[in-house]
Amino acid sequence: MKLKFSKMHGLGNDFVVLDGVRQQVSLSTEQIRALGDRHRGVGFDQMLLVEPAQTSGADFRYRIFNADGSEVEQCGNGARCFVRFVHDQGLTEKSAIVVETKRGIIHPRLEADGLVTVDMGQPRFVPDEIPFVSDTDAPEQPLVLEDGTTLTIGAVSMGNPHAVTVVADSEAAPVAVQGPQIENHARFPQRVNAGFMQVLDRHNIRLRVYERGAGETLACGTGACAAVVSGIRRGLLDSPVRVQTHGGDLNIAWAGIGQPVIMTGPAVTVFTGEIEL
Amino acid sequence: MKLKFSKMHGLGNDFVVLDGVRQQVSLSTEQIRALGDRHRGVGFDQMLLVEPAQTSGADFRYRIFNADGSEVEQCGNGARCFVRFVHDQGLTEKSAIVVETKRGIIHPRLEADGLVTVDMGQPRFVPDEIPFVSDTDAPEQPLVLEDGTTLTIGAVSMGNPHAVTVVADSEAAPVAVQGPQIENHARFPQRVNAGFMQVLDRHNIRLRVYERGAGETLACGTGACAAVVSGIRRGLLDSPVRVQTHGGDLNIAWAGIGQPVIMTGPAVTVFTGEIEL
Repeated sequence: MKLKFSKMHGLGNDFVVLDGVRQQVSLSTEQIRALGDRHRGVGFDQMLLVEPAQTSGADFRYRIFNADGSEVEQCGNGARCFVRFVHDQGLTEKSAIVVETKRGIIHPRLEADGLVTVDMGQPRFVPDEIPFVSDTDAPEQPLVLEDGTTLTIGAVSMGNPHAVTVVADSEAAPVAVQGPQIENHARFPQRVNAGFMQVLDRHNIRLRVYERGAGETLACGTGACAAVVSGIRRGLLDSPVRVQTHGGDLNIAWAGIGQPVIMTGPAVTVFTGEIEL
Repeated sequence: MKLKFSKMHGLGNDFVVLDGVRQQVSLSTEQIRALGDRHRGVGFDQMLLVEPAQTSGADFRYRIFNADGSEVEQCGNGARCFVRFVHDQGLTEKSAIVVETKRGIIHPRLEADGLVTVDMGQPRFVPDEIPFVSDTDAPEQPLVLEDGTTLTIGAVSMGNPHAVTVVADSEAAPVAVQGPQIENHARFPQRVNAGFMQVLDRHNIRLRVYERGAGETLACGTGACAAVVSGIRRGLLDSPVRVQTHGGDLNIAWAGIGQPVIMTGPAVTVFTGEIEL
């Protein structure tokens, strides 16, 4: 099977994007893993598969796979690349697109300046929905780590679980030490993404995220959303907030409870390729 | 500038290969680095550039660049990929090819079974030519590490410097600890590749190599040559020798002093791509 693909990235979070509309794409877990090998395959953080919509009113269906072949619900950087991809490939001319994902319908939009805005859905705070073992959805909660440290976290689901900690200096934050302890904490039964947020002012933060199953990454889209939402709930931030990450900047807006989180950021096509599987 | 490329690997050592015969390729160090970025570029261990020959009698010129943009002399896995590339791209139909490299002329050959045999040139043992600070070219010499350990090494140049140590069990060998100490040892003024060789029998070894500037790699072609040559000189091995690495197997033959080392192994095209630089 000969497969055409695009290699893209959003803030250094990189993707192989496959057009499953105009070509037949049916990959086994083994084939996805082989594609994801950075030496013997193409290499990616996630593989994005664009398919015809199955629901009436939607333009596309969009699926996300990790390099281990597992399917995931949500990827903010990936959603931006998806939008650039369907435009660059001529699959649509709409700038506002209706997309089915594993999490539900999303409504991304290509902006005039080439940036992409993605409706990341409503954040959820109910412990069972995160999931987080707690009897309260309070914006700040203590979390005792294995090494005895007590952190004050904000627990947020953006389709995937996040635990956000406020730090004085994100560069000096013990991400490599505390990240894995937070990720695998017993109170997060499906593990958790650990965010370390430095508040610069009410509209600017610096952020590092230790991602579930991946370790520290250059930039985590849902992590940026979770950090800003948590900061607003804690009374530290006002929407919109510019999030500085090692991979680049994102703009996050949230109007409050009951409203979706809106993320704007870049999406870049690096190259196009063809592989025989 | 739009550039077509192939992504290839030899035992997991991966390459972007560029046809500089049919397309104009002139890349700055910055552009090579950008191409080498595994998230924002294509990603590779080395970039191979195929150019028209400048010497009469040669079929091609072939240059090798590291991901940091520096040009290197020799790469055994790369030479095999080069041969597959010029055949697959229809740049030649010859199975025996004459190639200019920074090190001199080499004579690789595509075998009927698809494997590629590369004449890796004569090994050199004269300390000044390696370069190695020593008053003898004896096959075994003591090397005292920073941590006080004394190793018995064989010092060999295969166009690049190698220090080969015999170990009882290559899997248990302290590659991560001793590798950097050997690499940066004061007696190797241009640093050195550190090989850890387990002798299985006179025709079979297991090998791990800590590569200069790269750390431990899946397979190092010149490292395999150096290990076998060193083993033969030490009276431990007889030609030919099958070398097992984490990346796969190589076959190395050497008829002794004054003769070139002959390496046979696989070369795989993973995908073809096109990038706008």
